[in-house]
Amino acid sequence: MKEYKLICTNCDESYEKETIDFRCNHCSEPLELEEVKIGKINDGNILTQTNLERYQDFYPYLTIDSKLNLNEGFTPLVSSKALAKEYGIKNIYFKNESQNPTWSFKDRGTVTGVLRAMNLGYEKIGTVSTGNMATSVAAYGSKAELETYVLVKKGIADEKIKPIAIYGPRLIEVDGDYSKLYDKSLSIGHENDICFINSDAPYRVEGYKTIAFEICEQLNFEVPDYVIVPTSAGGDVRGIEKGFREFFNVGLIKKVPKMIVVQAAGCSPIYNAFKDNKLVIDRVMDPDTIAHAIENPYPPSGNQVLRMLKRNGGLAIAVTDEEILKFQNKLASLGLFVQPASATSLAAIDKLYKDNIIGESDRIVCILTGSGLKYTAALDKHELKAHGCKLEELNDYIKKVGK
Amino acid sequence: MKEYKLICTNCDESYEKETIDFRCNHCSEPLELEEVKIGKINDGNILTQTNLERYQDFYPYLTIDSKLNLNEGFTPLVSSKALAKEYGIKNIYFKNESQNPTWSFKDRGTVTGVLRAMNLGYEKIGTVSTGNMATSVAAYGSKAELETYVLVKKGIADEKIKPIAIYGPRLIEVDGDYSKLYDKSLSIGHENDICFINSDAPYRVEGYKTIAFEICEQLNFEVPDYVIVPTSAGGDVRGIEKGFREFFNVGLIKKVPKMIVVQAAGCSPIYNAFKDNKLVIDRVMDPDTIAHAIENPYPPSGNQVLRMLKRNGGLAIAVTDEEILKFQNKLASLGLFVQPASATSLAAIDKLYKDNIIGESDRIVCILTGSGLKYTAALDKHELKAHGCKLEELNDYIKKVGK
Repeated sequence: MKEYKLICTNCDESYEKETIDFRCNHCSEPLELEEVKIGKINDGNILTQTNLERYQDFYPYLTIDSKLNLNEGFTPLVSSKALAKEYGIKNIYFKNESQNPTWSFKDRGTVTGVLRAMNLGYEKIGTVSTGNMATSVAAYGSKAELETYVLVKKGIADEKIKPIAIYGPRLIEVDGDYSKLYDKSLSIGHENDICFINSDAPYRVEGYKTIAFEICEQLNFEVPDYVIVPTSAGGDVRGIEKGFREFFNVGLIKKVPKMIVVQAAGCSPIYNAFKDNKLVIDRVMDPDTIAHAIENPYPPSGNQVLRMLKRNGGLAIAVTDEEILKFQNKLASLGLFVQPASATSLAAIDKLYKDNIIGESDRIVCILTGSGLKYTAALDKHELKAHGCKLEELNDYIKKVGK
Repeated sequence: MKEYKLICTNCDESYEKETIDFRCNHCSEPLELEEVKIGKINDGNILTQTNLERYQDFYPYLTIDSKLNLNEGFTPLVSSKALAKEYGIKNIYFKNESQNPTWSFKDRGTVTGVLRAMNLGYEKIGTVSTGNMATSVAAYGSKAELETYVLVKKGIADEKIKPIAIYGPRLIEVDGDYSKLYDKSLSIGHENDICFINSDAPYRVEGYKTIAFEICEQLNFEVPDYVIVPTSAGGDVRGIEKGFREFFNVGLIKKVPKMIVVQAAGCSPIYNAFKDNKLVIDRVMDPDTIAHAIENPYPPSGNQVLRMLKRNGGLAIAVTDEEILKFQNKLASLGLFVQPASATSLAAIDKLYKDNIIGESDRIVCILTGSGLKYTAALDKHELKAHGCKLEELNDYIKKVGK
């Protein structure tokens, strides 16, 4: 296990000691592991190899522990040329992250975050989340037999809390200003030897690199032009972009695709700052969107996402709840039932098309972050049709509608 | 595309014409594709290969159509040596079928069934199901742009019908004796050119072979001693056993594992017949179990499963709802949140242990058929704990419980 530096994404201050800290002591901006410059893919049969084993060269600071393995990653990349044709572009691909162990992309970051905690000897882990991340950390914590603290917001819906609780974590409904909990959790973690693996914890962000690695392999190293990422705290898009950078560093790909950050119009702090050319985000005061999984009014990696987009040549956009529902439906008609947050990615393509930003040679990857079963309450917003029919009239009815 | 015979599983009558029929004209028992005797695995990078491409030799009668691809299969096999130790056996593995495109094993049989229908020129498909199979057929029918009929029972719960409806099939709530619908659908299919891909349709059963193929690869061709399969209509256990037989035929494995059929005590027609040494099953009059996904009172492949178990040396067992809930909890503590029907498999191990049927050298695979998110109402049956805490008291609380 080689030690890698953590570097501040803003002021370049570097930290050499074994740390699980998230933020720079000087400017409070997020830290990031230094880039891997040498490495290759460990080719093998994926049926007998884990994701981290395949890409181990890109995790030189992690020692794999089979106790933690739930087999995250290796998710499908489904193409839809027919849909691409509608938008006059070359191809659209969907990276279906709903086929992970807890049915969202979070598992990739959880496994690296928890592994780092285990490597450093922690016996307690935690997270601040009411959604996909909470479920994921509860599952992996349970699998690794770690004491696992999940801090949720007081009054969270039954549909959300029960699928977390079933894994048996120490589940705490916190009464108070939930937005203060991210910082508070870090100090509580220090005091109680709990490694908090929050949304943009550096070793969590690292886990999302494998999304990029797999996309490269799945497209035979012909990288797409754009990767569209539904964005909340900012950890996922940062990790994915870093993954492409590292494959570029080692010579596996010839360019880094442009990142497109998509947010819900009802809570779009990164988009708001991006469109006004600001360097820092402002807190959204009254967040309101059906895409709960990306409803973060003050994303901790927001400023870094703005810096990353500038370097990368990417952009940020926002889509309305109406658009989200429309494209949740459209995705289902392609066989992909996703949570509302994930549907923002296809809604984004529609917007890019209308704004003449994408062209005929473009190949675009949408990240479908999580399963539609994560938030079935959204189904009530759709007009879903079922026809009633008596058994003895069934044949006649089918004859009639089948014409 | 080579034509293969369909053979009656009971009277050996064979059918040579291109057919989608399920049942023998003479004895009404299920038909089955003749066994593949020659073939090999198409080795390749699974990230750029579909499941059916890898195992194409074992589907000589199917022509792959990329329009249908949602990337089913290649699901994890998670081992738990710690749990095996509790039961004094060598190892327990969980084949996590919840990581499929619609989060259950059904997708494997749907893709082969729908593909066969497309190969034969059908433009309409259908199924009779209120659960996993309905969702799966709706998704694949939608993806393949086929007119898709899903026949559900009148009065099915919202939680069940909406995740089917979102894919946009022709969804029909049938009012009448639902148990008659299986046969009725076949005659309606004939009359209206609809290919019904029901629970034990021969080309659906074929799809489940890949579960066995993958297990063989994942265990480096050292097959397990037992494979435990939650069983409803009987299609899945038949397909899995056939997959092992075909890998045995071509010399890839040295033996066929014993199959263990597990049913819920509240609806266990196959177990009932097995324990009384009967050759045919009787209908269960008042089925009642929390494991809805395997609550079939008169499974169409029931008799064939009995014949298969005799040939294979396997057995059938039943577990109570109380046991199902206990082991749903236990599985979650291993990071695997499954639907109640899937938890029967681990409950079965507990029973086999108590009955001294399994021994220290045994390696057992449990098939986890579907995601716990499929039926979240089951969570109400668990005592799930969350602790409320004020933000300012959080540190003290964690100090207290963490001791």
